[in-house]
Amino acid sequence: MNLYDATIPVFSKFLRNVERWLDKAVAHAEQRKFDPQVLLDSRLAPDQFPLIKQIQELCDAAKFASAKLAGKTAPSHPDTEKTLDEARARLRTCLAYLETFSRDDFVGAEDRTCSHLWMQGKSLRGGDYLDHYALPNFHFHLTTAYAILRHNGVPLGKTDFIGKLPFVKS
Amino acid sequence: MNLYDATIPVFSKFLRNVERWLDKAVAHAEQRKFDPQVLLDSRLAPDQFPLIKQIQELCDAAKFASAKLAGKTAPSHPDTEKTLDEARARLRTCLAYLETFSRDDFVGAEDRTCSHLWMQGKSLRGGDYLDHYALPNFHFHLTTAYAILRHNGVPLGKTDFIGKLPFVKS
Repeated sequence: MNLYDATIPVFSKFLRNVERWLDKAVAHAEQRKFDPQVLLDSRLAPDQFPLIKQIQELCDAAKFASAKLAGKTAPSHPDTEKTLDEARARLRTCLAYLETFSRDDFVGAEDRTCSHLWMQGKSLRGGDYLDHYALPNFHFHLTTAYAILRHNGVPLGKTDFIGKLPFVKS
Repeated sequence: MNLYDATIPVFSKFLRNVERWLDKAVAHAEQRKFDPQVLLDSRLAPDQFPLIKQIQELCDAAKFASAKLAGKTAPSHPDTEKTLDEARARLRTCLAYLETFSRDDFVGAEDRTCSHLWMQGKSLRGGDYLDHYALPNFHFHLTTAYAILRHNGVPLGKTDFIGKLPFVKS
């Protein structure tokens, strides 16, 4: 086992799924004749992040999880996006960053010490960081992005969420 | 690495988090003087599952992921729950089942062939099953349950979602 398998291909697949959700969101907005920007600015509760920020957060979740497990310093991707084209560009920037990682980068990642500034000096073993924080956090923002679109009537289903599965070749 | 660490303690922790979300949901309903059953029957879209079904689904996601990776047959837990007490009982039934697993059950789990009936004869390598389906599916229903409560005004935050982290002891 190498934690590359649990991170880079998984994050990349789901980021591409989000691009397809945005395609469906735009098609839905065109059909219903409203500006798709409305969806980017929508949120499920007044004190929860809107869709554009959920996309920024899920990109950062993927970026930081990968960088910290691989012992690298993540590049800064400021949250300046406001439009749909900018949201797509942010997803592609993150995808391009994920492509810079190799399986070798993750050798021993399960025992690498991982920390964020908000942990105030505390840290987690790499395996625990992935299982208890990084993956739940990534999927939290991913699912919330999906839920905002579903709540606003975009025709998405579970297969749009899960995407393609790497079945065993028979 | 042993996939026990990525499943049993993670699922158990989040199921206990859900119990605490329900405590806060009941307190919120009492304060606002509405029946907490309303929350269990709430959904984010008319064609998406309500909270009670999200809880059943996240329990089943944890149960099936654990059983299939360990090469065991999962017990049947029929989706008969309707009330808050029944939802809590379902969470505890799942937690008790998760406690029956040992680390030894997961030796070699990453290479065990995992399949569901809906895969129509196809299957996934255990590691891929966990990374691409079982964990995303568990977190999907977990986050949707959280989002239904947030959308309905229950005062929950990200720390309620993530719960306690197993920091390295200094």
